[in-house]
Amino acid sequence: AAAPWPAAAQSSVSISGILDLAVRNVSNEGVGSMKSMVSGSNSTSRLIISGREDLGNGLSAGFHLEHGILADTGATAGGAKFWDRRTTVSLSSKTLGELRLGRDFVPSYTNWSRYDPFAYVGVARTANLVSATPQGPIRAAFGSNANTTVRSDNALQLLLPANPGGLVGLEGGLMLAPGEGGAVASGLAKLVGLRLGYAGKGFGVSAASTTSDNSQTTAGKFRDTVVGGQVDVANVRLSGAWREFKYATSKQTLLLIGATATFGLHEVKASWTQANLSGRVGTTAVDANDASQWGLGYVYNLSKRSALYASVAQIQNDGAQRFVISDGAAGIVAGGSSRGYEAGLRHRF
Amino acid sequence: AAAPWPAAAQSSVSISGILDLAVRNVSNEGVGSMKSMVSGSNSTSRLIISGREDLGNGLSAGFHLEHGILADTGATAGGAKFWDRRTTVSLSSKTLGELRLGRDFVPSYTNWSRYDPFAYVGVARTANLVSATPQGPIRAAFGSNANTTVRSDNALQLLLPANPGGLVGLEGGLMLAPGEGGAVASGLAKLVGLRLGYAGKGFGVSAASTTSDNSQTTAGKFRDTVVGGQVDVANVRLSGAWREFKYATSKQTLLLIGATATFGLHEVKASWTQANLSGRVGTTAVDANDASQWGLGYVYNLSKRSALYASVAQIQNDGAQRFVISDGAAGIVAGGSSRGYEAGLRHRF
Amino acid sequence: AAAPWPAAAQSSVSISGILDLAVRNVSNEGVGSMKSMVSGSNSTSRLIISGREDLGNGLSAGFHLEHGILADTGATAGGAKFWDRRTTVSLSSKTLGELRLGRDFVPSYTNWSRYDPFAYVGVARTANLVSATPQGPIRAAFGSNANTTVRSDNALQLLLPANPGGLVGLEGGLMLAPGEGGAVASGLAKLVGLRLGYAGKGFGVSAASTTSDNSQTTAGKFRDTVVGGQVDVANVRLSGAWREFKYATSKQTLLLIGATATFGLHEVKASWTQANLSGRVGTTAVDANDASQWGLGYVYNLSKRSALYASVAQIQNDGAQRFVISDGAAGIVAGGSSRGYEAGLRHRF
Repeated sequence: AAAPWPAAAQSSVSISGILDLAVRNVSNEGVGSMKSMVSGSNSTSRLIISGREDLGNGLSAGFHLEHGILADTGATAGGAKFWDRRTTVSLSSKTLGELRLGRDFVPSYTNWSRYDPFAYVGVARTANLVSATPQGPIRAAFGSNANTTVRSDNALQLLLPANPGGLVGLEGGLMLAPGEGGAVASGLAKLVGLRLGYAGKGFGVSAASTTSDNSQTTAGKFRDTVVGGQVDVANVRLSGAWREFKYATSKQTLLLIGATATFGLHEVKASWTQANLSGRVGTTAVDANDASQWGLGYVYNLSKRSALYASVAQIQNDGAQRFVISDGAAGIVAGGSSRGYEAGLRHRF
Repeated sequence: AAAPWPAAAQSSVSISGILDLAVRNVSNEGVGSMKSMVSGSNSTSRLIISGREDLGNGLSAGFHLEHGILADTGATAGGAKFWDRRTTVSLSSKTLGELRLGRDFVPSYTNWSRYDPFAYVGVARTANLVSATPQGPIRAAFGSNANTTVRSDNALQLLLPANPGGLVGLEGGLMLAPGEGGAVASGLAKLVGLRLGYAGKGFGVSAASTTSDNSQTTAGKFRDTVVGGQVDVANVRLSGAWREFKYATSKQTLLLIGATATFGLHEVKASWTQANLSGRVGTTAVDANDASQWGLGYVYNLSKRSALYASVAQIQNDGAQRFVISDGAAGIVAGGSSRGYEAGLRHRF
Repeated sequence: AAAPWPAAAQSSVSISGILDLAVRNVSNEGVGSMKSMVSGSNSTSRLIISGREDLGNGLSAGFHLEHGILADTGATAGGAKFWDRRTTVSLSSKTLGELRLGRDFVPSYTNWSRYDPFAYVGVARTANLVSATPQGPIRAAFGSNANTTVRSDNALQLLLPANPGGLVGLEGGLMLAPGEGGAVASGLAKLVGLRLGYAGKGFGVSAASTTSDNSQTTAGKFRDTVVGGQVDVANVRLSGAWREFKYATSKQTLLLIGATATFGLHEVKASWTQANLSGRVGTTAVDANDASQWGLGYVYNLSKRSALYASVAQIQNDGAQRFVISDGAAGIVAGGSSRGYEAGLRHRF
């Protein structure tokens, strides 16, 4: 008998990724400087295996496996969580959008990182000011366990199709994850996130909110809210974003201003970020523990896939704050400054 | 000088696999219900890298690497044993069969899982009743270390060719593994397994036996025996199988009856399995600790590669037994019932 | 606007590797013999993902990811260091050579292993006499932590191009790695290595030196020096090499003589290696703890990619020395002999 399957185009599996290594120097106030080789300063080193199958009638199925590589040592970025960056299977409709199951970025992260000229990586990444180390809402909610500021396991997502219902430029999605009993140590959390944006000609605005809780968050939900926008002025893209982490009696806000200028093969990037903590963790007031960071970067594109780059950044902590550029010596003084620069090679494949 | 190699066709490396995720709800008597996202309920999520080289004269060489993925979190299914599902290199002859070296399924497992309509995965898998948790032969032999009910490391296999010696439909193989000093914690065991089957037009029968021992199995060998068969009646495949785990003074038998009906793109599956424990573990009698499970499933094939599915299953424990459908809350009452249902998306690539 | 990238040929990602498994028997004096299945006795089992991009003007970018597989169990050879064999990104010029960043072989290892007919693997590998277990310079410098006798994380390499500056046959490279604060447990070390060789028609000579230190090497640097050469006489390649490990007050020298004869599809290999320890570790004199090893191997090439092979080797320890062929029973007597043989199948893909 003839196969009962609907006629459908087959597409092959694709292997792609990025290898990115740089030499870095970080000076942390009070403990001197340290040289290192670091992975992923322009773009996170990774291996991607993905594919898509056309099911006919505007439907398609697809999968995406993405593995983070610490290319300086060859180690997995996620430990035993090998496909730590993304592990999803999808059913997509051109008119109804995409049902996506599995580990992926949370809406608030997706909405924030697009406005960071350094894409959340390298010496000048805004991630330097998103840390579970200092007393604040992130640590208060999740301790040193995995938190939901970047990704979530077990997620079910409903993503809008392109130009949903004829609304040109509208985009967004909903993410839901079950708590699975709230096992804290494994970083599981019940999560609800929403993202909505509008991309016009030369500009875009978007907002997202993600709330999560597990058995450790006994004082309510952890809330992560982001609003941002960008506009292109000649060859310069200007961006700005605001983010707020909130849990129990403490709060942390981030304010980001960024610019990326492109001149042929050359790219110049700059960002300024401010972290403002407020409220209390237990009986400890954290209001004075703020910080600001500036970053400056240059990229020379050897091709569409390969680039040489260099960046420099500095964090100035206030009060008892100890944010640092990573891969420096441990033990920065409270309220001290962290300075770093790096130069590297990024290759996409 | 000309290359001395025999002329041989070269074939390329193939990348394939499966991503399968579902949302599940499990209710365990006495502890309520829990929602989760689970990987591999229709078919285990995996990545396969394999290849074959034609050596001429009916000979070929080949390899197979198969990695299990917990697609809900991105973690490896086998921890540091990345290629946990299969890691083999082979030399094959069309007339003499295949010499296969490396980690693979044991003959008893291969012979059992083919008769399970749910292929040993999902809420209705017969694997629910094969567990090292309850007092019985598996736990008595191997404790909580890796056991030999599914796979073996270090295996040497001799597999029959298709239609060996002109005996159309005969198939089977022998597996041998050295104990490597019997390091218990690493799950190593000395193993001997044999499988023999006959596949006719619309029916098949087969039998297998696997014995294993290591430094922990001081009371003799662990024996795993399976006999089964299947027959196609119109568009329905009916299957039945019997399995016995035996070690020292305790025994566990499994009886399975399964059916899979296919209607165009639709598939309906049902199974009923009974676990019967007998004998003693130390001085503890386990005869009363039996259980039975039924499962019902529906699969809608979007294509040959992609499918939507839903399943429901229930386990009824007797005596002190505590078999469960996985991913429920811990602590089911002795002799209680475990109920689960799930719906998911499976994509082969 | 037109893309600003220089015109450049695109090349695709390549997947390759080796699966190699053998059955082995090792007899260690005083503790009897043990059978096992072992991975990589002719060539280390591995998976490679690599690629190269032509940037025009004699320039190219490239990457190389290489993962070691313990094919007997499916485990990663490097634990969480998945891409343990090599993880590099490169920018290459036909005239200036290659800038390579990331984890790779150290110059001394590269220079030694090329003269070992058994390529540092299998029962007859010279690696049997390079061990951190006995009292000597390796253990004194690095303890049981990762050492720098084979690879280095965080390395920056400058490699000579082919025929640099018109000097036909000259080859070599420089490797530098920062200590990254000298975290001992992670095996990090500050490293400087250099390799220089000359390859003529039917012969070659080369030398290398690698020095490394971290927070544990308080008595100075660990130095690893190698000089070697080879010459082809008819169908036989003869090789010889000398290696010296030196740290503080102890020293270990290795002397290797090897031969590989090729007859059509057949290959016969032999090696003899001597390990000579001298000096003291703390107050313990190690001069008497020497050892010698001989090895004999046969390879039958089924094709360019697949081969059957068998090898046999023996180590004779002196004094309190306990070098062993791996995968034998633990607890060889001091000064005892270790004997092993193996037969296997190697397939390149």
